[in-house]
Amino acid sequence: MTNSSTNMRLKLPITCFILEIILIILFGVLVVYDHDTDAKLFNKNMKINNSTAGGNDFYYRYPSFQDVHVMIFIGFGFLMTFLQRYGFSSVGFNFLIAALSLQWATLMQGFFHGLHEDGKIHIGVESMINADFCTGSVLISFGAVLGKTSPLQLLIMAVFEVTLFAVNEYILLSILGTRDAGGSMTIHTFGAYFGLMVTRILYRPRLEQSKHKNSSVYHSDLFAMIGTIYLWMFWPSFNSAVTAHGDPQHRTAMNTYYSLAACTLSTYAMSSLTAHDGKLDMVHIQNAALAGGVAAGTAGEMMLTPFGSMIVGFLAGIISVLGFKYLSPILEAKLKIQDTCGVHNLHGMPGILGAIVGAVTAAVVPKEVYGNGLEKVFPDVASGERETSFQAGIQAISLAITLAIAIFGGLIVGFILKLPVLGAPRDNACYEDSVYWEVSLIKQDSWSQTV
Amino acid sequence: MTNSSTNMRLKLPITCFILEIILIILFGVLVVYDHDTDAKLFNKNMKINNSTAGGNDFYYRYPSFQDVHVMIFIGFGFLMTFLQRYGFSSVGFNFLIAALSLQWATLMQGFFHGLHEDGKIHIGVESMINADFCTGSVLISFGAVLGKTSPLQLLIMAVFEVTLFAVNEYILLSILGTRDAGGSMTIHTFGAYFGLMVTRILYRPRLEQSKHKNSSVYHSDLFAMIGTIYLWMFWPSFNSAVTAHGDPQHRTAMNTYYSLAACTLSTYAMSSLTAHDGKLDMVHIQNAALAGGVAAGTAGEMMLTPFGSMIVGFLAGIISVLGFKYLSPILEAKLKIQDTCGVHNLHGMPGILGAIVGAVTAAVVPKEVYGNGLEKVFPDVASGERETSFQAGIQAISLAITLAIAIFGGLIVGFILKLPVLGAPRDNACYEDSVYWEVSLIKQDSWSQTV
Amino acid sequence: MTNSSTNMRLKLPITCFILEIILIILFGVLVVYDHDTDAKLFNKNMKINNSTAGGNDFYYRYPSFQDVHVMIFIGFGFLMTFLQRYGFSSVGFNFLIAALSLQWATLMQGFFHGLHEDGKIHIGVESMINADFCTGSVLISFGAVLGKTSPLQLLIMAVFEVTLFAVNEYILLSILGTRDAGGSMTIHTFGAYFGLMVTRILYRPRLEQSKHKNSSVYHSDLFAMIGTIYLWMFWPSFNSAVTAHGDPQHRTAMNTYYSLAACTLSTYAMSSLTAHDGKLDMVHIQNAALAGGVAAGTAGEMMLTPFGSMIVGFLAGIISVLGFKYLSPILEAKLKIQDTCGVHNLHGMPGILGAIVGAVTAAVVPKEVYGNGLEKVFPDVASGERETSFQAGIQAISLAITLAIAIFGGLIVGFILKLPVLGAPRDNACYEDSVYWEVSLIKQDSWSQTV
Repeated sequence: MTNSSTNMRLKLPITCFILEIILIILFGVLVVYDHDTDAKLFNKNMKINNSTAGGNDFYYRYPSFQDVHVMIFIGFGFLMTFLQRYGFSSVGFNFLIAALSLQWATLMQGFFHGLHEDGKIHIGVESMINADFCTGSVLISFGAVLGKTSPLQLLIMAVFEVTLFAVNEYILLSILGTRDAGGSMTIHTFGAYFGLMVTRILYRPRLEQSKHKNSSVYHSDLFAMIGTIYLWMFWPSFNSAVTAHGDPQHRTAMNTYYSLAACTLSTYAMSSLTAHDGKLDMVHIQNAALAGGVAAGTAGEMMLTPFGSMIVGFLAGIISVLGFKYLSPILEAKLKIQDTCGVHNLHGMPGILGAIVGAVTAAVVPKEVYGNGLEKVFPDVASGERETSFQAGIQAISLAITLAIAIFGGLIVGFILKLPVLGAPRDNACYEDSVYWEVSLIKQDSWSQTV
Repeated sequence: MTNSSTNMRLKLPITCFILEIILIILFGVLVVYDHDTDAKLFNKNMKINNSTAGGNDFYYRYPSFQDVHVMIFIGFGFLMTFLQRYGFSSVGFNFLIAALSLQWATLMQGFFHGLHEDGKIHIGVESMINADFCTGSVLISFGAVLGKTSPLQLLIMAVFEVTLFAVNEYILLSILGTRDAGGSMTIHTFGAYFGLMVTRILYRPRLEQSKHKNSSVYHSDLFAMIGTIYLWMFWPSFNSAVTAHGDPQHRTAMNTYYSLAACTLSTYAMSSLTAHDGKLDMVHIQNAALAGGVAAGTAGEMMLTPFGSMIVGFLAGIISVLGFKYLSPILEAKLKIQDTCGVHNLHGMPGILGAIVGAVTAAVVPKEVYGNGLEKVFPDVASGERETSFQAGIQAISLAITLAIAIFGGLIVGFILKLPVLGAPRDNACYEDSVYWEVSLIKQDSWSQTV
Repeated sequence: MTNSSTNMRLKLPITCFILEIILIILFGVLVVYDHDTDAKLFNKNMKINNSTAGGNDFYYRYPSFQDVHVMIFIGFGFLMTFLQRYGFSSVGFNFLIAALSLQWATLMQGFFHGLHEDGKIHIGVESMINADFCTGSVLISFGAVLGKTSPLQLLIMAVFEVTLFAVNEYILLSILGTRDAGGSMTIHTFGAYFGLMVTRILYRPRLEQSKHKNSSVYHSDLFAMIGTIYLWMFWPSFNSAVTAHGDPQHRTAMNTYYSLAACTLSTYAMSSLTAHDGKLDMVHIQNAALAGGVAAGTAGEMMLTPFGSMIVGFLAGIISVLGFKYLSPILEAKLKIQDTCGVHNLHGMPGILGAIVGAVTAAVVPKEVYGNGLEKVFPDVASGERETSFQAGIQAISLAITLAIAIFGGLIVGFILKLPVLGAPRDNACYEDSVYWEVSLIKQDSWSQTV
């Protein structure tokens, strides 16, 4: 199953070591504790029982951070174990590239919007959440190329994608003042279209040689449901993790909760409706039921209302199942986009929907509805700098910018990943753990037996 | 495996769409953000570092909410995957009916005890926890009928059960002033006896045709342990999620923790003791070890002491194993109650035990023990309206009312579910995913192979 | 597979009942609610919206507690399911001995450093975390003897180990003023060397009779990854769970996060580098990637900086993989230490590394770096009682003491566990669930089929 190029013995260790050593040096030079993590800046008067060590942001963000963390490592990792012979790689490569990405993202995001006057990047729980967010975007792209890349290719992809993610995020959030707390644009749309372009460039005309392994078995579908359910449960924490404290965080979590619930109903309905015998399809349940979280990523913090959230989730589920059923085969046949996990249906279209919902919500909800709370959601409107209609326009432009950077970036990175030295698997060895993992023959047999 | 009646192609989508559209309309008309989720009501003076955005209830309830959420979707969902051919349905139907129930519960609970003077239902994190609680009750009933119902029957059951749950909860908590923070009565006793009545009415005399599938295989038992362990770990959060802030929440979590630990010891002891060869039975470990959480559901917030909690848990484990071993076969043979998951042993009897413990604790702990904190646990006693003995009587009466509503309600709903149009599986196609799910023949074979 | 001695029908129930009854009695006599869990001590003026029910420690510790709880029951439990025929025992015995240990630890830790002037042990969320920590140590030792002991042996081991853990912890934290918030010494080094001595004494020269079962199959490795990933994600919560409030807790979590990320990169690198064909080994990924958490256990709360944390994690990953690859076979062949899970590589050496890093960090970081925050990290230095160099010496001595107590304790307890009445499995029945668990023949067959 292996050939010389897929032998990672020198390539992978050297790459990991070099990357980690660079990271360590850059952290040594650039990164310092922020106000809430540094011992020196501790205000002696803060005492827990009669005031405000509770003011440390740790207590407002850390539970959300851990929920996001579970989504990144368990959620994404296990969602992708649905493939019958690719469980080690799904969880294991997810683990590897996430561990790299969160470190690199700390630097890139810090460089673009965290540098303080002292020229240092100050970090704490909020930067940890943002690093995990950026990592999520890389993992979405991983879903598009799942089963067809070496760990080395994935590491290289992660380095570039994190960088471009930080650029796009900087343009949107810092320059344009776009609102996108849950990342419908910055995370989902960006990650999906970046990954789709990469997989387009890496198109394999003879991939049908591995076709029989590009499917699930009974147990692998159950493992994947662990990922699905964790993503579903913690999505309210994801969308609300970096909103302003207080009602915006509370409201975002609640909007997302109802969007997801409505999405689940429409997903089941559509899955049954689009099957000739009315049977439910695990692919839809595992993926489309999450589209409601993606689609609430921009407007979740706004006064979308639970009612509005449910409509958004309801539509997202419908669009997503239709995408899996009818659009994905077309994308593969006509546009040569082999999208293993269907990220276009879970992150791409619902991300665009979310961006549009965000722009529309910004436009149609009068600012009076926000009262005093306006500055927490639309600070530029509250300060009188812009009108809500202008904000809506900015939201729409941001979607276009995100798509442009993602598509153009994915194109370039796709070509880089074609370098033969990176050790991609042969066409007949895709979706197969044994190329990069020790899987003893006995284990392999047992596995075949259960196919 | 399918016949025309079990084909869900039109029935399931139509039902899901109609239900979701009704929900969306009712949310649009009736539901608004509460004080802590509405932007307008934000007090500009709240600033995180020198006071009280930290006062937003989000920060006191949301971590508990997420723990409860995990119990509902992972805990219940995976606990039921113990069946060898019913994993998709266990996790998948659990997911579907929970997503419906939490929306419907928001309305029903809001209607009964959340309506404000403006005629609207005000929602926030506390209503989300209560909606999840109500959902838990539906999932307990699902456990009783597991493997023998169509998704359509389950949706219909959920709609009725949520409604009756809200009625019972209203009578207990709002009219009678019953204390039942962790829901020994409102959630566990109600859900169990409701489900037992439903399964009684749906009695299948020829169910032995599916007998060989009504059991576990090695891997399915491991998947089920994921559910068990999550339920066990987060039960302290469940029982304390809606108690008063401060010491009651803290105390409830701790009481439950010790109750569960003691219950685990007695469960292992009884499981070994009741086996002729002393071997442990996974069914007991998966279920009875949780009975300590159920039994601490009412008294957990009271001054039960860790010592008292451990006695309660210890007894609950013993009762539950004995139920699985000796009572369940009798219930099936004599009373024609086919209780797939043994919810009578995990939720029914321990729920009643919990209700009794609550009444006794209310009666025997002098109110002086509560000091200033009395109003948080027994507000009606603190206000002088009633004595502790009267409160104890109320607790006992509440158990009787709960049983009556659950049994009568389950009876009616059971008859409704007998409608042939709802597409129940045939007697020889119970406990079988392939009736309602795409399970390719290859997958099916592999599955048989591993049986 | 069973013989009379492994029949647990009387032994296990009697032991469980006696232990639990003793626990209940001792709790009744000795244990009371602490200030934050007792209703009576509630300060009526505390109101959630304009002050300080939020001052209840529950809100600062409980989310961390639940993360630790998940590590203990899911993390350790599933990490050990990697064995092909030992999943029930891995999760199930983990569950049993953890439930016992946390109760016994409450008493032992309370006795040694929680007794108040009233002669009672006052408990709350912090004691719950500490009880879980002590339990973690027992589970590490369980990893060393995994597959070779009866549940009865494990219960006996737990009783003794918890006691010795509390003694060692008392000497370190209370007498010497050692800093070890995340337990590199008290938990990991102690648990590992204790377990290694026990397994040394229980050495089985004919263990190769069960050799074929001392390995994983495809699915069991995926179950184990659930444990790994949860341990990895929540380790920041583990190390920070009992540090001082505010910046120390925040900083510890962040240091651990970066240590783990760097450790993951070096683990993958070394796993590939040490394989002749460059393929990754699941054993390394499942274990060595966690060494960064262990190694940050002592210094995590200090001003280690993210940069320093990453170096520590990077080294820990390298050491751990090298241990699995080269040292473990030597330990087994030369020192007759049969270390099933390789706890020496995950907890032993990284624990020692963590202790050394703690001593060095205490020595080299000038106290000025801590500013006002010094008293939260090094109270004895802040009070002027000792210099940082003296603190560093104390840290080093503490490692020696821990090793001495662990090794000597493990030696004694190992001999106690050799009592034939405790029902250890025969040499040809190790790593085998069916000795102590109901596993029907059909299930057993299926399992063999998938081997």
